Amino acid sequence: MFGARCLLRFLRSCSSAPCPRHKPSAKLSVRDALGTQNASGERVKVQGWIRSVRSQKEILFLHVNDGSSLESLQVVADSSFDSRELAFGSSVEVQGQLVKSLSKRQNVELKAEKIEVVGNCDAKDSGFVHIHTPIITSNDCEGAGELFQVKPSSKIKVPEENFFNVPVFLTVSGQLHLEVMSGAFTQVFTFGPTFRAENSQSRRHLAEFYMVEAEISFLESLQDLMQVVEGLFKTTTMTVLSNCPEDVELCHKFIAPGQKDRLEHMLKNNFLIISYTEAVEILKQASQNFTFTPEWGADLHTEHEKYLVKHCGDIPVFVINYPLALKPFYMRDNEDSPQHTVAAVDLLVPGVGELFGGSLREERYHFLEQRLARSGLTEAYQWYLDLRRFGSVPHGGFGMGFERYLQCILGIDNIKDVIPFPRFTHSCLL
Amino acid sequence: MFGARCLLRFLRSCSSAPCPRHKPSAKLSVRDALGTQNASGERVKVQGWIRSVRSQKEILFLHVNDGSSLESLQVVADSSFDSRELAFGSSVEVQGQLVKSLSKRQNVELKAEKIEVVGNCDAKDSGFVHIHTPIITSNDCEGAGELFQVKPSSKIKVPEENFFNVPVFLTVSGQLHLEVMSGAFTQVFTFGPTFRAENSQSRRHLAEFYMVEAEISFLESLQDLMQVVEGLFKTTTMTVLSNCPEDVELCHKFIAPGQKDRLEHMLKNNFLIISYTEAVEILKQASQNFTFTPEWGADLHTEHEKYLVKHCGDIPVFVINYPLALKPFYMRDNEDSPQHTVAAVDLLVPGVGELFGGSLREERYHFLEQRLARSGLTEAYQWYLDLRRFGSVPHGGFGMGFERYLQCILGIDNIKDVIPFPRFTHSCLL
Repeated sequence: MFGARCLLRFLRSCSSAPCPRHKPSAKLSVRDALGTQNASGERVKVQGWIRSVRSQKEILFLHVNDGSSLESLQVVADSSFDSRELAFGSSVEVQGQLVKSLSKRQNVELKAEKIEVVGNCDAKDSGFVHIHTPIITSNDCEGAGELFQVKPSSKIKVPEENFFNVPVFLTVSGQLHLEVMSGAFTQVFTFGPTFRAENSQSRRHLAEFYMVEAEISFLESLQDLMQVVEGLFKTTTMTVLSNCPEDVELCHKFIAPGQKDRLEHMLKNNFLIISYTEAVEILKQASQNFTFTPEWGADLHTEHEKYLVKHCGDIPVFVINYPLALKPFYMRDNEDSPQHTVAAVDLLVPGVGELFGGSLREERYHFLEQRLARSGLTEAYQWYLDLRRFGSVPHGGFGMGFERYLQCILGIDNIKDVIPFPRFTHSCLL
Repeated sequence: MFGARCLLRFLRSCSSAPCPRHKPSAKLSVRDALGTQNASGERVKVQGWIRSVRSQKEILFLHVNDGSSLESLQVVADSSFDSRELAFGSSVEVQGQLVKSLSKRQNVELKAEKIEVVGNCDAKDSGFVHIHTPIITSNDCEGAGELFQVKPSSKIKVPEENFFNVPVFLTVSGQLHLEVMSGAFTQVFTFGPTFRAENSQSRRHLAEFYMVEAEISFLESLQDLMQVVEGLFKTTTMTVLSNCPEDVELCHKFIAPGQKDRLEHMLKNNFLIISYTEAVEILKQASQNFTFTPEWGADLHTEHEKYLVKHCGDIPVFVINYPLALKPFYMRDNEDSPQHTVAAVDLLVPGVGELFGGSLREERYHFLEQRLARSGLTEAYQWYLDLRRFGSVPHGGFGMGFERYLQCILGIDNIKDVIPFPRFTHSCLL
C-alpha cells in the first residue's frame, strides 16, 4: 500500500536540450493531450507517472497519467525503448508525436521518440513494516467506552472466571500497539478489522470495519503527516483507477453519475488546511441552520464536516489543532493557552465527512504523565508511559476507515454496500 | 500470496541445439554448480527459477534456484540480455561458463552466454480474489464449541440484550463465508485472525492466530487440492528465503541449528501421501509407546503426527480420507462403506505436526441435507444448504495456521515467539 509512496517524489525538471532536427516540443498535460482534436503529428512533451506497461514483441504500450485527468495517455514506443525502469509508478518524460489512434479505445496516442525516466519506482522500497496488531486487547485506546467485551462462551470450562485473567475487548484501534513497534521499526502500518459497539443506524458506521493505520517515528510536524496522508489517498486512488477501471466505472455509471468528475477534482487539487478555530468561525458565519450549533470547544458533527467540505469547493480539507479537552490523552499538547489545543488532524472529504484522523503523539514524559494522571489512567497505561522513558522520539500517526474510503471513491452512499458481510446493530447475518 | 503459483508451471524440456562452436553443455543442478571446486570456465546448462534480479548499467545479475539448494546460483550477464521477462519467478534455462566468483559471497558464478525464458511469471495473474471474511459471526463453523462470545461492554446502552439480536462469536474460520464468495469468484482466499477459546498451554496453540484459507470452485479431487497446498508451501517458503535471507539465517543460526538442511530436505522432495487407514496401521506397528493408543476411528494426536512425519523420513506428508464421524458436516462423503470416510486432508510437517487442513466440500444437496439433519443443524445452516440448491459446483478448500507455518520454516519451538502480541489462557498483555 505504501509502496506507491514513491509516486510522491518530486518531478525533476527536464534539462535535456530539444532534439535539433525538430521544433521544440510543447509541454502538454495529459488532459490537454487527450483533448486534442484532429491530432496530426504535433511534437509534444508529456510528464507523468506510468500506470501500466504492456510489452509486445516489437512494440511497447505505456499508459501515463499526471493527475490532470482520470484517463491516461497511451504512449506507443518501439521495443528498443523497453527497460526494467519503465515500471508501474516510475515517473517519465516522454517526447514524441501526437497522432490519431487506430484503436477505438482512445482518440489520440503519443508516438514516443524519447522516453526519459525521471524517477525510478521500486515498489519494495517503501520503508513501512506491516504489523499484525491484535484483535483481542486489554486496552481501550480511545477511552471511548464503545467496546465489545470478549468472554469464552458458556460451554467452555476455564479455571478462572476470566479466560485471560483480565477483562478483554475487541480492539478499537491498533495505534498503541503500533507505537510500540514504531520504536523498533521507525515506520509501521497495520490493516485490519476494528470494532465499535455504537448503537448507530447511520450510513457511515459499522460495528466491524477495516482501518489502515500508520505510525511514523522521528516525525515532527503535522505538515509532514498530512503529506503522507494526501500522498496515500491520491496514489492509492490512482492505483485503484488504473488497476480496476471496469469496477470503478460500473459504480460511477449506475450508482454515482458525476462521481468521476468529483474524484478528478479531488486528485488534481492540493488538499486544503484550516485550523479547528477557523472551521468553527466558518460554521458560525454559515447561513445554513445546523442541528448542533457550532461552538468553539464542541465536537464537529457530520453536518458540520459536510458543510466545511462544500465551503472548500469540494476539495478534501485537513482540519488541524483541536481543543485538548476534546481529544484522547496521547495527542501532543500545542502549549498555546489560553486556547489550549493539541496537534490533531482530521481529513474531511466530499460525501463522507471524516475519512482520516491522526495526530502527533505526546512524546514528552512529563506532559504525558500529567495527562494520564488527570484522566485517572496512570496505572493502566504505565507501559505506554514507559515508551517515553526509554528512547522516546517525536512521532505521529493516522488511521483511515477503509470502507469510508471505498464510499468516497466509488460514490456509494451507504457503508453497508461496500463490505461483503456488514455487521451493525440488530444485524449479524451468517 | 498466490501470485507465486506460477512457479509451479512445468519446466519444459529444452529443444535448442548446443552452440556449434562449443562442446555440448553439461546440465547441472544448482546444488552441483555451487559445489564445483576450482571452476575454470566449464560450459554448463542450469535450469531453474529467478529469485532476484539486479540490473546495473552494463551488467545484469540474476539469482537462479531450482529447489536443489537453499542457496541460489549467481548468473552474470551483460546488459543486452536484460528484458522484462527476466522477472522474479520466471523459469529460465541458462547456458554459459562456470567461473570462480570475484565476490566473497559465493565461490562460483555462471557467466551467461544464452538465457532462455521457459515460462513467464506475471505475478498479478494469480486468479485468487482476496476476501475479508468477518470476525464477528453468528456461525460456529467447526461445531467445535471452543468459541469466544462477543457482547457490548456493560457501559453500552442498547435497546435489546443482544446488540445484534442474535448471540455472536469470534470467527473460528472464514471457510463458510469463502464458500459463499467462491460461488461468484471461483477462486478466493482470506488471510486474517481467527480465535479458539481452548484452555491450552501448549507450544502450538494460541487463542488468537492468523489463517490463510482458500476455496476453489470446480475442483474435483484431493489430488488437485494437494497440488495447490504443496505449491503454496514451497513457493512461499522460497520467496521468504530469497526476500528475507538475513532474518531467516538469524533464526537458523541462533535458535535452530540444522534447520536449514531440514528445510532444504522438505523443499526438494515431493510431499508424500498416505491414507488415514494406512497412518493408523503405521502407528499400530510402531515400537514407540503412545499416550493415546492409535485406533481406527480415533483422532490423530500431536505425538502420532510427529511419529508419522519421522516415519516418512522428515518429508511433509498428506494424510487423506478420515472417518466421517471425526469430521464436520461439510466434508465430502467418500461413499466407501463399511469404512465410511470423507475426502479430508491434513498436511503434517516436521517439528509442528498438522499445518494445513482441508477437504472437498459436500456439494450434493441431499447428502448435505442428511448430514445437517443428523447433527440437528438444519435450521441454522439453511443458508448454507441453499448454496447447494442454486448452481452448486464441486469445490474444495484448505486453511493453514500462519504462526505454525513460521514455526515450521524458522524452527521456532514455541508459537508464542512468532507473533508480536500473543494471546493465550491467562495472558493478554497490552
